[in-house]
Amino acid sequence: MPADSTLIVETKERETEMYQSIAERSKHEDFLRRAADLLVERVVFARANRTSKVVEWATPDEIKKAIDLQPRDSPVSHEELLKIMADVARYSVNTAHPYFVNQLFSAVDPYGLVAQWLTDALNPSVYTFEVAPVFTLMEEEVLREMRKFVGWSNGDGDGIFCPGGSIANGYAISCARFFFYPETKSKGVYAVPKLTLFTSELAHYSTKKLATFMGIGTDNCKLVKADALGKMDVQDLESKIIDAIEDGATPFLVTATAGTTVYGAFDPLRPISALCKKYNLWLHVDAAWGGGALMSRKHRHLLNGIELADSVTWNPHKLLAAPQQCSTFLTRHPRVLTSAHFAEAQYLFQKDKFYDTEYDTGDKHIQCGRRADVLKFWFMWKAKGTDGFEKHIDRLFDNAQFFTSHIKHREGFKLVIEKPECTNIMFWYVPTSLRGCESEPDYKERLHKVAPKIKERMIKEGSMMVTYQPQGDLVNFFRIVFQNSALDHKDMVYFANEIERLGKDIVV
Amino acid sequence: MPADSTLIVETKERETEMYQSIAERSKHEDFLRRAADLLVERVVFARANRTSKVVEWATPDEIKKAIDLQPRDSPVSHEELLKIMADVARYSVNTAHPYFVNQLFSAVDPYGLVAQWLTDALNPSVYTFEVAPVFTLMEEEVLREMRKFVGWSNGDGDGIFCPGGSIANGYAISCARFFFYPETKSKGVYAVPKLTLFTSELAHYSTKKLATFMGIGTDNCKLVKADALGKMDVQDLESKIIDAIEDGATPFLVTATAGTTVYGAFDPLRPISALCKKYNLWLHVDAAWGGGALMSRKHRHLLNGIELADSVTWNPHKLLAAPQQCSTFLTRHPRVLTSAHFAEAQYLFQKDKFYDTEYDTGDKHIQCGRRADVLKFWFMWKAKGTDGFEKHIDRLFDNAQFFTSHIKHREGFKLVIEKPECTNIMFWYVPTSLRGCESEPDYKERLHKVAPKIKERMIKEGSMMVTYQPQGDLVNFFRIVFQNSALDHKDMVYFANEIERLGKDIVV
Repeated sequence: MPADSTLIVETKERETEMYQSIAERSKHEDFLRRAADLLVERVVFARANRTSKVVEWATPDEIKKAIDLQPRDSPVSHEELLKIMADVARYSVNTAHPYFVNQLFSAVDPYGLVAQWLTDALNPSVYTFEVAPVFTLMEEEVLREMRKFVGWSNGDGDGIFCPGGSIANGYAISCARFFFYPETKSKGVYAVPKLTLFTSELAHYSTKKLATFMGIGTDNCKLVKADALGKMDVQDLESKIIDAIEDGATPFLVTATAGTTVYGAFDPLRPISALCKKYNLWLHVDAAWGGGALMSRKHRHLLNGIELADSVTWNPHKLLAAPQQCSTFLTRHPRVLTSAHFAEAQYLFQKDKFYDTEYDTGDKHIQCGRRADVLKFWFMWKAKGTDGFEKHIDRLFDNAQFFTSHIKHREGFKLVIEKPECTNIMFWYVPTSLRGCESEPDYKERLHKVAPKIKERMIKEGSMMVTYQPQGDLVNFFRIVFQNSALDHKDMVYFANEIERLGKDIVV
Repeated sequence: MPADSTLIVETKERETEMYQSIAERSKHEDFLRRAADLLVERVVFARANRTSKVVEWATPDEIKKAIDLQPRDSPVSHEELLKIMADVARYSVNTAHPYFVNQLFSAVDPYGLVAQWLTDALNPSVYTFEVAPVFTLMEEEVLREMRKFVGWSNGDGDGIFCPGGSIANGYAISCARFFFYPETKSKGVYAVPKLTLFTSELAHYSTKKLATFMGIGTDNCKLVKADALGKMDVQDLESKIIDAIEDGATPFLVTATAGTTVYGAFDPLRPISALCKKYNLWLHVDAAWGGGALMSRKHRHLLNGIELADSVTWNPHKLLAAPQQCSTFLTRHPRVLTSAHFAEAQYLFQKDKFYDTEYDTGDKHIQCGRRADVLKFWFMWKAKGTDGFEKHIDRLFDNAQFFTSHIKHREGFKLVIEKPECTNIMFWYVPTSLRGCESEPDYKERLHKVAPKIKERMIKEGSMMVTYQPQGDLVNFFRIVFQNSALDHKDMVYFANEIERLGKDIVV
């Protein structure tokens, strides 16, 4: 009995109160329904068609004027909230648009979106089976299936969902380090002299950035030369490994790339693996971008040798077009993730639970609370089947090949690489005023200014979005990225036409 | 002109194809509408009321039987997908339920949910202004406003959204390390002897875990004693700092806690700050849990001294009940996040863009692609105002105080700490069979078994969810957590009644 008996719940009183709460609730319900309608009608479907704008360009000041971004003391009305939603959508880049070909992600898959919405409504945090039973098991199934595609027998090994491919590449450093030098867990990297890792100069910057974050330092992240096609130079890798050993350092990891960020190049995994075996190094393959190709019988040869890797980063939110974010780290070693990271917090990972606590998988992660990023990908997989993903991938590569051959012979276009391996394609557009000036001393300098100018026009019109960058000796070039299989050959022509329309008359 | 003139888009042909795509689209539209209805009716509202179950307990095998978790080659129908959604919801823990008091998060705020749904529909990645203009500016405003609540003048400094408080605590290590020893960026932690940090033995495990991940090692993460109330013992801190210096190590950081995970204790920030000044150490305050109290004039005194910190972790998804995940790292040093982490990837952070690239904030992060976690919190702030958050916080503390005084005198209940500081309350429940046995030698051992048994019954009935754990010499006790302001005093009595109903007759 409660000490204070006036507090015993009286049914009648409780009912009255529930009524008040129902009144409050119906206001919320009304808002939620109107908001859901607005989302479906005005955000999702109004924005995904070709006639809408990719971006409604506005300067920071203009956006601040259009949306009162500052939090205030008092609340605003439901009407105002709905208007705010529309404004946030209006000034946000339309990444679902078929002509958003600017990043290694795009499109809003309807199944992925619905599953994100369900995830949000369930608001889980995935660390124990107790709190996230379905998501825990779902992660296990999906990760095993992905490991099968990597080529590890029965999909054996382990894996986790990560908040992005950069952190997944960090897990590779952590697992490799622990695998060879478990004493680093207690003693830090001080336990061994100058831990040293190797990756291509064209690899994603995350390996270098994470090497810093993880106490190893950029000097000890050796950048291996890439050849003209953007692939890691295996001879240079070996000579850099030898240099490090002679320097008294401790080589422990090579991070190769399957689908580099800019070139879309696939590093030669078999010879790299042979060197890793020879020098007893961990082989990590960053397939964040190219990993999706594993699901196509036609294109998976690009990743030949990936089955020799110790670990793999693979982001379904890239080539497979799952919503942001869906990144995985996979390893063929079944215990290393747990051994390297467990801290056994008693308040969360109690061992006297009534179920098998092997299902409490949170201690593998450096995160504690963690969003469930699995459902969107799993749900897309259910909705499309592996067959659907394969068709999607094949379509992307077909579009990419079509675009490549289309601009190859088109006046004003020049490919950086004649035969790109993945679905990102690099090219220069040469305005009329620059044609025939190739031998002039300031040609490169002038060409360098073209892409930014076209990009500015493009964004201000909102007709498409494609990125550009320089690379080494190469001046600014466009990199168009295909991972939306709703695109077709006509869209490919549209992109070339549009670049030409925006850039033809540029004088630099 | 395209080289292949047959590829020029012909308007008529294009229209035909668009029609086909509209047919495809209307199938998607129909599915999305039905899915949205299901979410609003059957997931969001059906689950948030007191008469529904908190959890529909099922074993892993039962769940695998109920839901075909394995990805397949072929797609399933829209009908089946809708059924799957319902099943996923059914077997997922109802974290929105008022009686889910198991973790440091709960409830599904309707405004937060709508904003998550909008975020998903816009599918942004926040790294450049170009791709995420609204979210970039919104982050800036929200983080500045949060820094004002911390007490830094004008909200000056810097900050980022992080994938969870653990990684936010990692950023503290990274910033402190770079601030004092910038050469660690290139040379790694090898640049200085044994970098050493200090945190309470009752601090969240993430500091230790991240110290390992970041190459420093658990041995160099010194755990400072906590007093009986769970607060860091300042004398022990100083003696551990002195020990480290005498040992030739390099102390650089103290991570204090404002609202510990289990005790809800607030470390004494002013004396800790004085020691940090004396020994030239960075003061980080992990206010992941307690930070929300800064928004209440009545309760912000708990964090007195936080304005002296160099950096703060504050998770709006905890005490402020924003949806998963919403975590921030704040620092009063304006440049350190950028200096410590920038890698200046040319393909993303081009400096020749046509707008002010100071708005391209992605290089502060160790993530590259990154979900927009700001909108849900910002939108809640708009919908409630600061006043609304203050009422929310005051309600939580009022409930917590009520619950504490209710069980204080109630038979069978025993508080671990008589006056908990935050809204998590620790207590033992002593079944009838154990009462009066306090002096028996196996009393503690028997009491240790009570909480797991009650928890099992509770979960199998689905009537509430509350967690338990041991701590040091203390055998298993319950820790009930309040961060849902829809709860009232009657719910507090319900919780005690329910524990009593489930536990009274237990014989251990």
